[in-house]
Amino acid sequence: MSQKNKLGRPPILTDEAVLDAARDSVLAVGARHTTLAEVARRLGVSRPTVYRRWPDADSLLAALHTREWTGLVERHAARAREHPSRRTLVGVVVAAVTGVRAHPVFRKFRDVDPELLLPYVFHRRGRSTDAILDTIEQLLRIGQADGQVRDGDPALLARAVMLTGQSFVISGATMADGYSLTALDEQLVILLDRYLAPGDPS
Amino acid sequence: MSQKNKLGRPPILTDEAVLDAARDSVLAVGARHTTLAEVARRLGVSRPTVYRRWPDADSLLAALHTREWTGLVERHAARAREHPSRRTLVGVVVAAVTGVRAHPVFRKFRDVDPELLLPYVFHRRGRSTDAILDTIEQLLRIGQADGQVRDGDPALLARAVMLTGQSFVISGATMADGYSLTALDEQLVILLDRYLAPGDPS
Repeated sequence: MSQKNKLGRPPILTDEAVLDAARDSVLAVGARHTTLAEVARRLGVSRPTVYRRWPDADSLLAALHTREWTGLVERHAARAREHPSRRTLVGVVVAAVTGVRAHPVFRKFRDVDPELLLPYVFHRRGRSTDAILDTIEQLLRIGQADGQVRDGDPALLARAVMLTGQSFVISGATMADGYSLTALDEQLVILLDRYLAPGDPS
Repeated sequence: MSQKNKLGRPPILTDEAVLDAARDSVLAVGARHTTLAEVARRLGVSRPTVYRRWPDADSLLAALHTREWTGLVERHAARAREHPSRRTLVGVVVAAVTGVRAHPVFRKFRDVDPELLLPYVFHRRGRSTDAILDTIEQLLRIGQADGQVRDGDPALLARAVMLTGQSFVISGATMADGYSLTALDEQLVILLDRYLAPGDPS
């Protein structure tokens, strides 16, 4: 990354390249050791070049989370918008759960620096959770307009869906003794599909 | 607690009294500062008296968790066994969720020493989760025998119920912006009741 192009000017450093370097650093040394200096070193640039865009490692890591998880959800959500149905909506959530849980960045956080995820588990939503919640709410509105999803405040339904899916991501491994994660996720499909089906709520 | 009885012998120190002192210490100084020495000091006994029963503070705190949460669940479960139905079963889970989330010991851990809960969120079940999971599984079997709960491996169904309920405990607060916890828990009732209802799974 430190090589210069043919005109002798340094290549343009995109945000994506910095996030890629942050991701590589997390995977190599863990999130706690991913400093701006470490990321700059990997990019072969000076530290101020990185500081200029992100004031500290926390904000860079937050941006990495946002890119990875909202990107993953958005790829699935795009398909659901093309073929809207309750089944595709549930499919988006379950694919996101499976995708995040298996993602090397999530696994590294979970297994090496889980304390960095604590605030988002117990106290407040991060930006990526906000973005995913918005996407779920949008898909629920489409489903309600189609009559495929039951009535009810879509923002509240989205919160219940999010709480449920999130637990299968972060705590799935604690319940996989004797059961595959696939078997658990099949139950998640049933949970969400039945929860969202039209009709008398209970 | 350090007073002697009329015969001049120290009063019998029950496990319950030690757990009460551990609970009081957690509420007063937080879990991280709840050492065996601190608990002994509160009881007015020597440290070896406490060490003899619990080798370290972690095991004492684990016993406290087990007593508090399984006790809370068991009180509700007893009612559900008397009047078994899907509705009472779901009521047990939701009452347990509400009860644990509002419990001063849980709140103290969550707000002061959440890192002590990390292993149980991400990696493995504690003894209290095991005990609660067993209780849910038993209630599901009763419900299945009655035809009130759909078919399926009750241990697997219990895991899905547990993952869902657990998230409403630990992460409920992150989704309560603009919504009451009561409104969220009403969604939990619908989620679980529909999930467990007999009939075609989806």
